[in-house]
Amino acid sequence: MTDIRLLGICGSLRQASHNMTLLKTAQQLLPAGVSLQIADLTEVPFFNADLVTKPAAVTALLAAMEKADGFVFACPEYNYSIAPALKNALDWASREPDNRLLAGKAAAIMGAGGGMGTSRAQYHLRQVGVYLDLHFVNKPEVFVNAFSGVFAADGALQDEKIRATIQAQLVALQALVLRCKK
Amino acid sequence: MTDIRLLGICGSLRQASHNMTLLKTAQQLLPAGVSLQIADLTEVPFFNADLVTKPAAVTALLAAMEKADGFVFACPEYNYSIAPALKNALDWASREPDNRLLAGKAAAIMGAGGGMGTSRAQYHLRQVGVYLDLHFVNKPEVFVNAFSGVFAADGALQDEKIRATIQAQLVALQALVLRCKK
Amino acid sequence: MTDIRLLGICGSLRQASHNMTLLKTAQQLLPAGVSLQIADLTEVPFFNADLVTKPAAVTALLAAMEKADGFVFACPEYNYSIAPALKNALDWASREPDNRLLAGKAAAIMGAGGGMGTSRAQYHLRQVGVYLDLHFVNKPEVFVNAFSGVFAADGALQDEKIRATIQAQLVALQALVLRCKK
Amino acid sequence: MTDIRLLGICGSLRQASHNMTLLKTAQQLLPAGVSLQIADLTEVPFFNADLVTKPAAVTALLAAMEKADGFVFACPEYNYSIAPALKNALDWASREPDNRLLAGKAAAIMGAGGGMGTSRAQYHLRQVGVYLDLHFVNKPEVFVNAFSGVFAADGALQDEKIRATIQAQLVALQALVLRCKK
Repeated sequence: MTDIRLLGICGSLRQASHNMTLLKTAQQLLPAGVSLQIADLTEVPFFNADLVTKPAAVTALLAAMEKADGFVFACPEYNYSIAPALKNALDWASREPDNRLLAGKAAAIMGAGGGMGTSRAQYHLRQVGVYLDLHFVNKPEVFVNAFSGVFAADGALQDEKIRATIQAQLVALQALVLRCKK
Repeated sequence: MTDIRLLGICGSLRQASHNMTLLKTAQQLLPAGVSLQIADLTEVPFFNADLVTKPAAVTALLAAMEKADGFVFACPEYNYSIAPALKNALDWASREPDNRLLAGKAAAIMGAGGGMGTSRAQYHLRQVGVYLDLHFVNKPEVFVNAFSGVFAADGALQDEKIRATIQAQLVALQALVLRCKK
Repeated sequence: MTDIRLLGICGSLRQASHNMTLLKTAQQLLPAGVSLQIADLTEVPFFNADLVTKPAAVTALLAAMEKADGFVFACPEYNYSIAPALKNALDWASREPDNRLLAGKAAAIMGAGGGMGTSRAQYHLRQVGVYLDLHFVNKPEVFVNAFSGVFAADGALQDEKIRATIQAQLVALQALVLRCKK
Repeated sequence: MTDIRLLGICGSLRQASHNMTLLKTAQQLLPAGVSLQIADLTEVPFFNADLVTKPAAVTALLAAMEKADGFVFACPEYNYSIAPALKNALDWASREPDNRLLAGKAAAIMGAGGGMGTSRAQYHLRQVGVYLDLHFVNKPEVFVNAFSGVFAADGALQDEKIRATIQAQLVALQALVLRCKK
């Protein structure tokens, strides 16, 4: 049994984020042999080439990304594109030599938002992945309409159909990670 | 003579940014009756719905956006998409009631980067503009290859052809602002 | 009262196309002073630069486009992008000298398809419009889920909410045409 | 040695197409154990769900796609998006049961066109591939400026740097095909 370490990165910074809930739900639905840690972006500043020393939060993020075999991106949609905090985490990672934190790794995308379920942002993120040399799970895509009652009053995601889709995506990601590791 | 106030917003935060140079170059090439102020994003934090009070840098940014008749976006390309600092400025603005800072206003995009001149990021920005209800100049597009020697050692943009394209874009933006205002 | 002539172009070629129904519905909902003719693409071949003589169906299409003050595109989504017949009509039109059939004209997009209502195809079409120098209505966007029962057994679109959205889009298009004509 | 059969599909229908030249150049640069057949789209009509019988050219295309282990798309850029003939070939293929002609297969994209080397069309094609469940080579991307003198008077592609990039892409495609076949 190959152990696979996934890193979850969430583009929303607010405490009660539905997108963070997706990652926490994924943690409950992992296939055997797969673990999912969630990155902390709260103190990660905007990338700026003038910064000579990496802030501690960046160092911790990059270390977590280096250890990861694959990624789960919780991708909100802000104004029809990617949330800056998520994009910024990837921009920081992309500056490491030889793209060694990302190159050739597998990734999956899930998102909760309006009626399109953050699809517009997700396709932008997929284009980012071309440059970063990420390999994305094609199917199933996870598009959650956050305003359709699927999140309970306490924030939990109880919708069985969506939970099953997340689980299926994690199985597909596990297979893709193994394939990408060769 | 109608006076038009433009606001320039640059996605790169570094001091010697080529994209900031594009905005400063634009300031030298304005049509009569047009002014161009440049926003300061250095202290604008990531948008977070949990923030109950707007930081002062955000308040200043939003005030400048409200006064603007149109926008000039200096759009770097980070990993085939928009720089987070630029996207984040728009995300903050989009939270104002009735989208009143942006709705129906005209905008132009220019960018300096690799061989594609930030085109991949610019098309993502145009999609953002659909939701924000911005009207973009279609032509000319301004794509500057920053590695082709067009920027002098002191950072100045001396290439006459690019300067002429920027000037033509500003004329087109002036016309579009007038059309959108009426 | 300025008379405005719109041309509708539908990307689906099948007889009972829901997207064609959107155009026919639009014909029932036009603002005063606006007419909407629908182009016939059934005999328009693929653009091929080797063709020395334009087929009659192309000549008729281009003549209709030339007369139009603005366009309504009924945009199906095939495999997450634009239907070839619609794209091909625009490709033919783009070859006319000085882009005279399209340059600076206004357009609106509506589409019926799966759960996303052809949104993925519509954003690709908007990118095409940058090159073609079209000015699109930003809001409202018309995304129709064709599998949600909004089309009656005889194919008619009776959903009042969607009809109202189409009507609002036509009003917005009328205003944009007038603005683009200056 | 595993034999890999690739199918090349070119979006331009004209005889002297530079994009077809890219495919013919690829045929000269194949890794050992890899073959590349080129599909004939000249008689493939627009997909139309009303067609009850598949035209012979479609049947031949689909048979060639079924046999292929992977695809090389020669992707022109028409008006900032995909050439209809290429998109149409994929639309026909997508209608087969269980997406069996395409699902899980590997693909590479190359294109010759204006200064951006058809990049805008290529990113649209990558989005199409998400739905079709294709796995694309990320790097190297092949963007050829057709107006920079790289094509000789007789149409041949003699530029050594581009030939090397095509060769590297074919090696990457070979590896990806093997990985996708598991």
